[in-house]
Amino acid sequence: MNKTKYQGIIDYILKEINEGRLEVGMKLPSQRILAKKFGVNRTTIINVLDILKSYGVLESRERSGIYVANSRWNEYVHNNLSWQNYIGNSPTKNNQFYIQEINRCEFVEGIIRLGTGELSPELIPNNIFKEIINKDVFDQLSTNYEAPKGNILLREEVKRLANKRGIHCEVEEICITSGALQGLKLISDGLLIPKSKIIIESPSYINSIRTWHRIQSKIVPLSIDYIKNNINSIFKEDEDYSNSIFYSNPTLHNPTSNSYSLAEKESILKQCKAKGIPIVEDDIYSELWFNGDPPKSLKELDESNNVLYLGSLSKTVSPGLRIGWIIGNERVITHLADLKMQNDYGASSISQFVATQWLKYYHDKHIDKIKIELIHRKEIMENALNEYLGALGRWNKTEGSFYIWFKFNVKVDIKKLFQFSIQAGLLIHPGEIYSDKEKNSIRFSYSYIEKNKINSSIKKLREIIEKENLIY
Amino acid sequence: MNKTKYQGIIDYILKEINEGRLEVGMKLPSQRILAKKFGVNRTTIINVLDILKSYGVLESRERSGIYVANSRWNEYVHNNLSWQNYIGNSPTKNNQFYIQEINRCEFVEGIIRLGTGELSPELIPNNIFKEIINKDVFDQLSTNYEAPKGNILLREEVKRLANKRGIHCEVEEICITSGALQGLKLISDGLLIPKSKIIIESPSYINSIRTWHRIQSKIVPLSIDYIKNNINSIFKEDEDYSNSIFYSNPTLHNPTSNSYSLAEKESILKQCKAKGIPIVEDDIYSELWFNGDPPKSLKELDESNNVLYLGSLSKTVSPGLRIGWIIGNERVITHLADLKMQNDYGASSISQFVATQWLKYYHDKHIDKIKIELIHRKEIMENALNEYLGALGRWNKTEGSFYIWFKFNVKVDIKKLFQFSIQAGLLIHPGEIYSDKEKNSIRFSYSYIEKNKINSSIKKLREIIEKENLIY
Repeated sequence: MNKTKYQGIIDYILKEINEGRLEVGMKLPSQRILAKKFGVNRTTIINVLDILKSYGVLESRERSGIYVANSRWNEYVHNNLSWQNYIGNSPTKNNQFYIQEINRCEFVEGIIRLGTGELSPELIPNNIFKEIINKDVFDQLSTNYEAPKGNILLREEVKRLANKRGIHCEVEEICITSGALQGLKLISDGLLIPKSKIIIESPSYINSIRTWHRIQSKIVPLSIDYIKNNINSIFKEDEDYSNSIFYSNPTLHNPTSNSYSLAEKESILKQCKAKGIPIVEDDIYSELWFNGDPPKSLKELDESNNVLYLGSLSKTVSPGLRIGWIIGNERVITHLADLKMQNDYGASSISQFVATQWLKYYHDKHIDKIKIELIHRKEIMENALNEYLGALGRWNKTEGSFYIWFKFNVKVDIKKLFQFSIQAGLLIHPGEIYSDKEKNSIRFSYSYIEKNKINSSIKKLREIIEKENLIY
Repeated sequence: MNKTKYQGIIDYILKEINEGRLEVGMKLPSQRILAKKFGVNRTTIINVLDILKSYGVLESRERSGIYVANSRWNEYVHNNLSWQNYIGNSPTKNNQFYIQEINRCEFVEGIIRLGTGELSPELIPNNIFKEIINKDVFDQLSTNYEAPKGNILLREEVKRLANKRGIHCEVEEICITSGALQGLKLISDGLLIPKSKIIIESPSYINSIRTWHRIQSKIVPLSIDYIKNNINSIFKEDEDYSNSIFYSNPTLHNPTSNSYSLAEKESILKQCKAKGIPIVEDDIYSELWFNGDPPKSLKELDESNNVLYLGSLSKTVSPGLRIGWIIGNERVITHLADLKMQNDYGASSISQFVATQWLKYYHDKHIDKIKIELIHRKEIMENALNEYLGALGRWNKTEGSFYIWFKFNVKVDIKKLFQFSIQAGLLIHPGEIYSDKEKNSIRFSYSYIEKNKINSSIKKLREIIEKENLIY
């Protein structure tokens, strides 16, 4: 994003409001007129308006246009202190439009969530959490601050789980985090600098979060097809990769469900080692591999300790526990744990206690049960997609976890589909969330939606596409 | 800190190790010789050595000197990939030496903690947490992801608590955080830029955390005496305060226990408003005001919505819950909540559930009980200080919370006292944690230590001072 160009237009509109030429309740000129006025294309104007809407300065009125909002914010523009300056100047950007909308709509009563990457509430074992807290051992729990790397008993259990995944590590090489997301944030804050290159797969879940954006590092998206087709020459010969990282989701990738072959994984490791590029391996879905044990992780194959490995209970057990972990080089882990203390003083003791007991006594059996359920749900969704959208697109086989990455064969106006779907009580995840280039895809998830609503919801999507003439 | 100067010496030492001139197990020259070699003063050398120790490159051997450590880190320096570059180049710095040592020692079995700012484990109502989770209402709990601003029922309870404190706000003006510390981090990431000035009281708890250091903002410490003596002219006439904030802990300040008078608070608000400087009010201790209701907060007196208010259950109930909150301008709160989602997807659902029920049914009675206990502990500690250290120093009256800010009348080598105390099984908090200028003070806390160990521990401190000749 060209910050200067956006900021100029934003500043202009704010000045118009501030000096009273644009008043609360006034309608803005059309996007076309604004684009002409500022000599930019309409996409730029749409993005600027989205930013100002996210500040609360402007608001959309359905099928009417964009207005100066009657928000508390606008009470402050005449004040000495302008919060907008603080929000607008910050290097940290808000979530993208789709994500903000999704975050908001998820709390709309009754909305059907066709893309949500979480276990359905009925699959989350709350009754067992209660059972765990009723154990006598809870009485010995300390709910004072925890050790920087997290509760030692929990780290013992994570170590055991990692061992099962083929990863041999010590408890001092593990740091408990608030989900894998916080692990990414710690790596970003603690190991990267503005000149770092962050090499990511494209599309990628990582595109939907702004963790890396703050430090203004250069994000280098490589399409998964490119990586697979150039598996022995992924990185450029003469490029400076110092202080860079490769973020990979090599097993049951979100959103595409891709898993690299063993040979591909070995090649990635070899080349990263040769270039001195550490790997951040996001492995939060591998336990949900449907057919037997999952394929080997990069970390298992990593003999040089070049991989920082991210795990989590959010996808397999409960996101609300907020328990994840980073495994890697001990000094790095100590450094990141120190940062974690500076950020939030560690994860909830009660969550850490529940997670410890959970991993010790309940986890393995639960995973088996969840897998059966997910396979069943996947079949229902694939049948519905075949029936209602099969003629319009395709998807790759999903060998585990939650997602079907659906690519339309025809051009569909996904932004409109998103908006009309919300009006119809359906929430979808447009592919654009995961890559700017994926304007013609949808990430479906069969994990959250009620089973008996999958078929009718996909059917309704097809109806919206037809009724609103979204194929162009 | 002059980064270039430090980095030059660090790079030199790392190069010596990397190229084999300094080997694992070799002893480094004395600080005096190193200082001469690099043409810097000894403090610089001490700091450089501390940094290298924190990387694990060097290690101290007691009463012998500093050696090249036999650590995993040194296995990597000959590798293509040097994690040290990642750790060392990061703009985020590790905690200061004292804080790292304290974090480490707190998990040493049997150590007596004379400075820890937490409730003693026996004062934390774990049995009630268990009771809460056993309620039927737990069965309706969702442990999926929570709303960006936090669980709505919890925000209702926080709103009620804020009302009781004289603060009138809506649930949309509240964001649940992982303790007040995360609130600070969100404000730092989300509202400040490198040119921001962060005006803080000195000494301050805030000096002990590195939240602000990352963005390289200028921290402007104003001594509390200066603020009180210049209460109508705190800020400079011709200084640029745009994008700056004033961080204040106006009631039961940590570590000094200072509380501003009503007139002082009004003056602070007036001047901040005139200069367009928002206030971050840290109010996490006010509920522990011993004698009746606490004095008014800045937020209660704030008519312009210029204050971001931080509250927490960490000091009054349990740090392990990791529940705090920010209250302020709705747009700012929405922005910070969005960032929070990018950082860690919110606080633990179980913690939020426990906190909701706790605030609804148990909190008020618990606070009354805790206050009685803290008053009792304070008297024991004051008696011990009078008896054993009274001749060597003084402290201001403490009207609530945990701390006695002890200033020696004589010069005491606090760094040595800190180290000898650890050897004797005592952990103290040197004043230097809270300000570089406070080299002759200690923050005592009577909240954590076992009651029956207060007297003997203070006595032992006096004995260490005598035996090791620490007065100079």
